Amino acid sequence: MPSSSLESLFRPKVACVIGASQHPEKIGHIVFQYLRESQVRTYPVNPSVPEIDGVPCYASVKEIPEPVDLAVITLPAAAVPGAIQECAAAGVRAAIPVSGGFAETGPEGAALERQVKETARQAGMRILGPNTLGILVPASGLDTMFVVKERCQRPPAGAIAFISQSGATGVTVMDAQAYYGVGFSAFVGLGNKVDVNENELCDYFGDDPDTAVLAFYLEDFADGRGFMEAVRRVIRKKPVVMLKAGRSAAGARAASSHTGALAGEDRVTEGVLRQLGVHRVYDEEELVDAARALAYVPPAPGRRVAVVTTAGGHGVILADEIAATVHGFGLEMATLSPETVARLRSETLPIASVRNPVDITASGSTAMMTAAVDDLLADPGVDAIICGVLLQTPYIDASLVDELAKRAHAAAKPIVAYVIGGAVGHEMLRRLEALHVPAYQGTWRAARAVAALVARGEFLRRQKAVTSAAGPSRPLDVPGRPLAEYELKDLLASYGVASPARVVIPPGQELPSSLVPGGPVPFPVVLKVSDPGITHKTEADAVRLRLATRAELESQVAEFRRRFPDKNLLVESMAPAGLEMIVGAVVDRTFGPSLMVGMGGFWAELYQDVTFRALPVHEEDVRDMLASLAGRKVFTGYRGLAVDVDALVQAVLRIGQLAMDIGDRLVTLDVNPLLVTSDGALALDAKLVTRPA
Amino acid sequence: MPSSSLESLFRPKVACVIGASQHPEKIGHIVFQYLRESQVRTYPVNPSVPEIDGVPCYASVKEIPEPVDLAVITLPAAAVPGAIQECAAAGVRAAIPVSGGFAETGPEGAALERQVKETARQAGMRILGPNTLGILVPASGLDTMFVVKERCQRPPAGAIAFISQSGATGVTVMDAQAYYGVGFSAFVGLGNKVDVNENELCDYFGDDPDTAVLAFYLEDFADGRGFMEAVRRVIRKKPVVMLKAGRSAAGARAASSHTGALAGEDRVTEGVLRQLGVHRVYDEEELVDAARALAYVPPAPGRRVAVVTTAGGHGVILADEIAATVHGFGLEMATLSPETVARLRSETLPIASVRNPVDITASGSTAMMTAAVDDLLADPGVDAIICGVLLQTPYIDASLVDELAKRAHAAAKPIVAYVIGGAVGHEMLRRLEALHVPAYQGTWRAARAVAALVARGEFLRRQKAVTSAAGPSRPLDVPGRPLAEYELKDLLASYGVASPARVVIPPGQELPSSLVPGGPVPFPVVLKVSDPGITHKTEADAVRLRLATRAELESQVAEFRRRFPDKNLLVESMAPAGLEMIVGAVVDRTFGPSLMVGMGGFWAELYQDVTFRALPVHEEDVRDMLASLAGRKVFTGYRGLAVDVDALVQAVLRIGQLAMDIGDRLVTLDVNPLLVTSDGALALDAKLVTRPA
Repeated sequence: MPSSSLESLFRPKVACVIGASQHPEKIGHIVFQYLRESQVRTYPVNPSVPEIDGVPCYASVKEIPEPVDLAVITLPAAAVPGAIQECAAAGVRAAIPVSGGFAETGPEGAALERQVKETARQAGMRILGPNTLGILVPASGLDTMFVVKERCQRPPAGAIAFISQSGATGVTVMDAQAYYGVGFSAFVGLGNKVDVNENELCDYFGDDPDTAVLAFYLEDFADGRGFMEAVRRVIRKKPVVMLKAGRSAAGARAASSHTGALAGEDRVTEGVLRQLGVHRVYDEEELVDAARALAYVPPAPGRRVAVVTTAGGHGVILADEIAATVHGFGLEMATLSPETVARLRSETLPIASVRNPVDITASGSTAMMTAAVDDLLADPGVDAIICGVLLQTPYIDASLVDELAKRAHAAAKPIVAYVIGGAVGHEMLRRLEALHVPAYQGTWRAARAVAALVARGEFLRRQKAVTSAAGPSRPLDVPGRPLAEYELKDLLASYGVASPARVVIPPGQELPSSLVPGGPVPFPVVLKVSDPGITHKTEADAVRLRLATRAELESQVAEFRRRFPDKNLLVESMAPAGLEMIVGAVVDRTFGPSLMVGMGGFWAELYQDVTFRALPVHEEDVRDMLASLAGRKVFTGYRGLAVDVDALVQAVLRIGQLAMDIGDRLVTLDVNPLLVTSDGALALDAKLVTRPA
Repeated sequence: MPSSSLESLFRPKVACVIGASQHPEKIGHIVFQYLRESQVRTYPVNPSVPEIDGVPCYASVKEIPEPVDLAVITLPAAAVPGAIQECAAAGVRAAIPVSGGFAETGPEGAALERQVKETARQAGMRILGPNTLGILVPASGLDTMFVVKERCQRPPAGAIAFISQSGATGVTVMDAQAYYGVGFSAFVGLGNKVDVNENELCDYFGDDPDTAVLAFYLEDFADGRGFMEAVRRVIRKKPVVMLKAGRSAAGARAASSHTGALAGEDRVTEGVLRQLGVHRVYDEEELVDAARALAYVPPAPGRRVAVVTTAGGHGVILADEIAATVHGFGLEMATLSPETVARLRSETLPIASVRNPVDITASGSTAMMTAAVDDLLADPGVDAIICGVLLQTPYIDASLVDELAKRAHAAAKPIVAYVIGGAVGHEMLRRLEALHVPAYQGTWRAARAVAALVARGEFLRRQKAVTSAAGPSRPLDVPGRPLAEYELKDLLASYGVASPARVVIPPGQELPSSLVPGGPVPFPVVLKVSDPGITHKTEADAVRLRLATRAELESQVAEFRRRFPDKNLLVESMAPAGLEMIVGAVVDRTFGPSLMVGMGGFWAELYQDVTFRALPVHEEDVRDMLASLAGRKVFTGYRGLAVDVDALVQAVLRIGQLAMDIGDRLVTLDVNPLLVTSDGALALDAKLVTRPA
C-alpha cells in the first residue's frame, strides 16, 4: 500500500473513539478527551451512553454522519475484531486498537490478532497496533495516548519522528524530554505490528517535511530486508538513529516475553546497522541525545574536536572522553593553528589556557567565550566544537545561548553545548533546546553527541566513495551432499579464491610419483584426511604439517592409510607465513545471507574479533569491515607484517559472491583460515553446509 | 602532621577573610558574606575599609581580638606570601589562599607558591590550595566558595565527602546535584596542594562520622604510594570512588596545562585502583551516581540482578545493559525461583510478565510493585534489584517511594530505582534522594550504579579471601652492565622461575659433544645469538627454531659464527606447545615498581591485553590480574588447551619478587614469552634494564 494511506493515521480530519467512556479515569475517556482537544473532529461511539462531556454519543460507527478517517478502539481485545468489522463496513480508513491481550499473551490472543489483520486487509483499512499507545502529532494535537497529561507531559512540535515498539518507552521518554522542551514531529507506538510497521514509517517520515531525524526503538524487525531497503531510500537525506533492544541473550529473552518477538543475532544487526549508516545507540537517553544533535547541527567534516569552557577540569574530562578508546570515543583533540592560538591569546585573559581544550577560566566573559568559538570555527583544523554553558561564574550570562545559537545555525561544522548545573543550568538547557542548539547535562553526553555527528559525517563521505556495484546473484547449483574440502577449494578457485597446490589420493591409490620436492606440489607439504565427516581435523589427529621429504610423506601416508583406510587423503603445499583470517557467510533469520570477516587463529577467536554485513556487499563495505576490526592495526604494517589488503578484499568479495550464488540453500560457508600473505590470499581450509535442494 | 590539625580547616570556630571587600560582586565580599552566615565567627580584614555590611573591619589579622582558626585569603597571588607571614605571626592555624596565579601559571607563580609553603611549614600552619575554591561543609554552613548562591546552588548536608582537584568541577557538580537534593558531608577544593593533599583527606574523611563515601576528582596524585597507604586504611570501612582525569594522552596534556600536573601511565593507575578496591568512574555524573549508591544501600552479595517495572520496554533495555559485555556491565539477569514466579503470578495481573525482568504492566499498581519487590528480596537467587518508579501510569502513586525506602534500608541486598519522566519524575527523584534510595533518571545510570554495588561486594569478598602476605623486598645486587639472556635466566631460576635446558657456547668455542639428541639438552633445540645488544632477535635473524639433529645444529652454528663471530651462542631445548604470556615490571612515576601480566604473542600484543598492579602483590592480586584479562577464557580450558594456572601464578609472584628485590635500580624487567604449559611455566626469553648503581 502506498505510504499516503498513512495520512488517515497521521492527518485524519474525522476520528471516532469506539469504546468512548464517561468515566474520566477510563482509557475510553482519556483518548476521547485529548482527541477532542485536537484539530480533529472526534465522535464518541458507545451504544450504552447518550453523551460524553456534552457530546452526543453514537451507538455505532456507521451512524456517524460523515466519513471517518481514523477509529481509535479502546475496547478489550475480545471485542476488537467485531469493531474492526464494523469499521470496515462503514468505510473507516484506519484504526488503532489500543488494548493489549493479543499475540503477546498467547494463542487465543494470536487468533484475535489474525482476525483483525484479515478483516483490515480485505477492507483495505490500515491498522496501527494492536497493543499500542497509538500516535502523537504535537503540531496538530493529534493524541491517542491514554496517559493523562498531568502525569505525563506532551512534548512540543519538533524535528524528531519517534517510532517505538514499546509504548511505555515512548511515553516515558517523551515525558522526560518534554521537561526540557525537546520537540517531536510525531510519536508512533508500533505495538504488535499486524499492518503498519517500521519500514513503511521509515518511508513516511523520510518524506515528511516536518521530520529531520528518525529515531527508532525496536525489539525486533518486521522484515529485515525490507528495513534495509527502506533505510537506503532515506538515509542520505535524513539521519536514522536506533535503539535496538534484545542485544544480549537476556535482553532477547526479555523482548520475547514482552512482545513475542524473536531477536536476531546481535552481531549481524550491529554490522548491518553500520552498513546502512543507521546510528545505533544503547539506551533511551542516548536515543534522543543523538537525534537532537543530528537534527539541529550539520555532521562533522572530520574527527578533530575542540573544547572551550570556563571550567578547566571539564576540559580535562572532555579531552579524555573525546580521545580515549576505552571509556571514550576514540576521536581526536584538534591541534589549533598558531593563528588560532595567537588570536585566543589576545582575546582572553592572561591566565586562560589557549591550547585545546581552551579554558577561558572562571573569570572569562560571554564576549571572550563567543570570540573563542569564532576562532575555533575559523580554524580549518577543527571539525566540531564543544562549548560549556556554565552560568555559575560571574561574567558568563544567558546571552551566551543566543550567541551560540546564531553561530550553530550558520556554521558548516557542528557546535554542541554542555551544561553542568542546577536550576539555572536546567533553564539554560531549555533555552538552548528552544533555539535548537544540541545541549546536554554533563560532559559525557556532549562528547557522545559529537561522536554521533562524526559518525554521520564519515558515513556520508563513505557513501560518496562507493564506486563499485554490489554483485548480483548468479544462481549456482551445488550438490546436495556435503562437499569435500578439495571440491570446495575447486569451487572457490572458480570464483578466483586460490588455495595451495594439492593432489587428492583416493582410498587404495598409490602416492603419485610426481609428489616429490621440486614437483608440481612444492614441498614441504601438508597431509590431511579429506572427509566432510571430520569437522575438526586437528582434534581428530588427521593433519600432518611440514613434511619436507618424499620419505616423510610416505611414512605419514602409510600411517593415515591404516587409521583412515576408506578416506581420501589430501597432499597440499605448505602455505607460507601470513595473517590468518576467517571469512564466512551465514543466513541470518532477520537479514538473510550475511558475510562475516574476522581475525583467525587461536587468539583472535579468543577475542572474537569479527564483523558482519548483509550480502551483497560493495568493495567499500569490505574495507569498512576491515576497519571495524579491533585488530585493524595488522593491516597497516604492524610488526613488519606485510599484508596484501587488496587481495584480501577481493577474496572476501568473491566468497560473498559465492554465498549469494548458493542462494536459498546456504546454511553456512566458512573459509578458515584465509591466509593473507604479502602478495595474495589463500584459502587453507573451507567448509560449506547447505540445505538439500 | 596529625589529621586533627585539619579541624581548623573543617570545623573552625573563628575565621577571618583577608581581603574582605565592600563590593558585593568581589570575591572578598562573597566569601565574607557566606562565612558570616555560617556558624563560624568571622572577622573581615582590610586596612583600607572601616566596616563591611555593618561589621567593623580589621586592618590586620593580629588585631583580631581572639585566636583565629582559619584565614581565607582573597588577595591576589602576589600579596599572598605577605598575608601568610602575617597569619603565621598571629598564630592562625590554617589558611586558604583562594586566588590563582601560582605554579599553574609559570615560574614566577611557582616562586610565590614556594614562599607560601615554606612560611606555613615553619609556623606549623595548614594550607589548603592555593588556587582553590576552598571548603564547603553544608552541615555547619562553612562556605568559602566564591560563587554566588543565586547562580550556584549549595547542596544539603549528606553522606558524600567530595574532594576535587578542580574547583570548577566541584561547584558545577554540586550545583547540578543540589537540584535533586543530593547531600554532601563536605566539599574540598584541593587547588595546587602545597600542603593538604588527597592522602591526608582520605584519612580525615575515613574517620569522619558524617561521611559514608569518599568521592575524588583528581588530575594527578600528590604521592601515589602515600595514596595507596591511605586508601588501604579506609577502603574496608568506606567505599572510595574516583574520577581520575588525564587518562588519554590528550587528557593528560590538558591536565598538565590546567594544574601543572603530570599524569601517570593510565594503565598502571587503572590496575592500582582496582587493586586498592577504589571504584573508578569516567565522568562527573557517574562520580556522584556511584557515590550515592555506595552510600545509601549495601553492596551486592553477588552478580544476579532482578528488574521490576511497569514498562516492559525498559525491562528489555535494562536486561541488555545488565547482561551485555559490550555496551553493558557483564552482570547476570537473575533466574527467579519457581516459588518467586508463582508468588509473582498470584500477586500481579494475568497480563504481567513474571520472569525477570518482571513487567507488572501499565495496569500494575503500587501494591503489586511493592509485593514484587518483596518477592525479589526474598529470592535467594537475586543479589540486587532495579525498580522502576514511573508515575505516568494510573495505578502507581508516590507512596511507592516510601515503600521502596523502607525496603531499601532494611534489606541486605541493594535496591536501586530508576525514573524516566518530566516534572513528576524529577519530583520522584527528589523524594527518593531525600529518603536515600539511590535513584537515577534513565536505565543506563541505574544499571551502572548496580554494577558499582556488585564491584564493591566482590572487592570486599576478595579482601576476605586474602591469605598470603605480599613478600618483603630482599635487596639484590645486580651487575651494573646489561645481563645476557642466559645470566638473567640463571637469576630467574634462582627465584624459582624455570627455563628450558640450555648450553652457552662462547665465541670461538667448539660445540660440546654432549649436545646430541638424548643428551642433557633434549632435542629439538633452538639456537640463538645471546647478546644484550640485540633487542629483537627475530628481526635480526638471530634465532633458529626446531633443530632436530646434531648435523642441523652444527650447520646453523657455523652460519651464526660467520655472521656473529664475537657473540655467545645459546643452545636451548625447544619448548613444548603452550600459552605464551608476557610478565614484566616497570617503575611507574606515580606508583613506583609495578607488575604487568598480559597475553603474549603476536595477536595478544595486537589487542594489548595486559594489566598492571603496584608491587608487592599477593597471590590473590595475581589471580585477579588473570581474571582482569580480556582473554581470560584461555585459563579455563579454552579449545582444549591445558594451562597450569598455579604455576603461572607462582612464576608471576616470583618475577614480581625479583623486581622488588632489584629495588631502586630497576628500569624494566620483561619475561616475554613466559610459556605456560599443562604442567609448569618456562621463561623463554627475558630482558632486564637497570640504572647503574
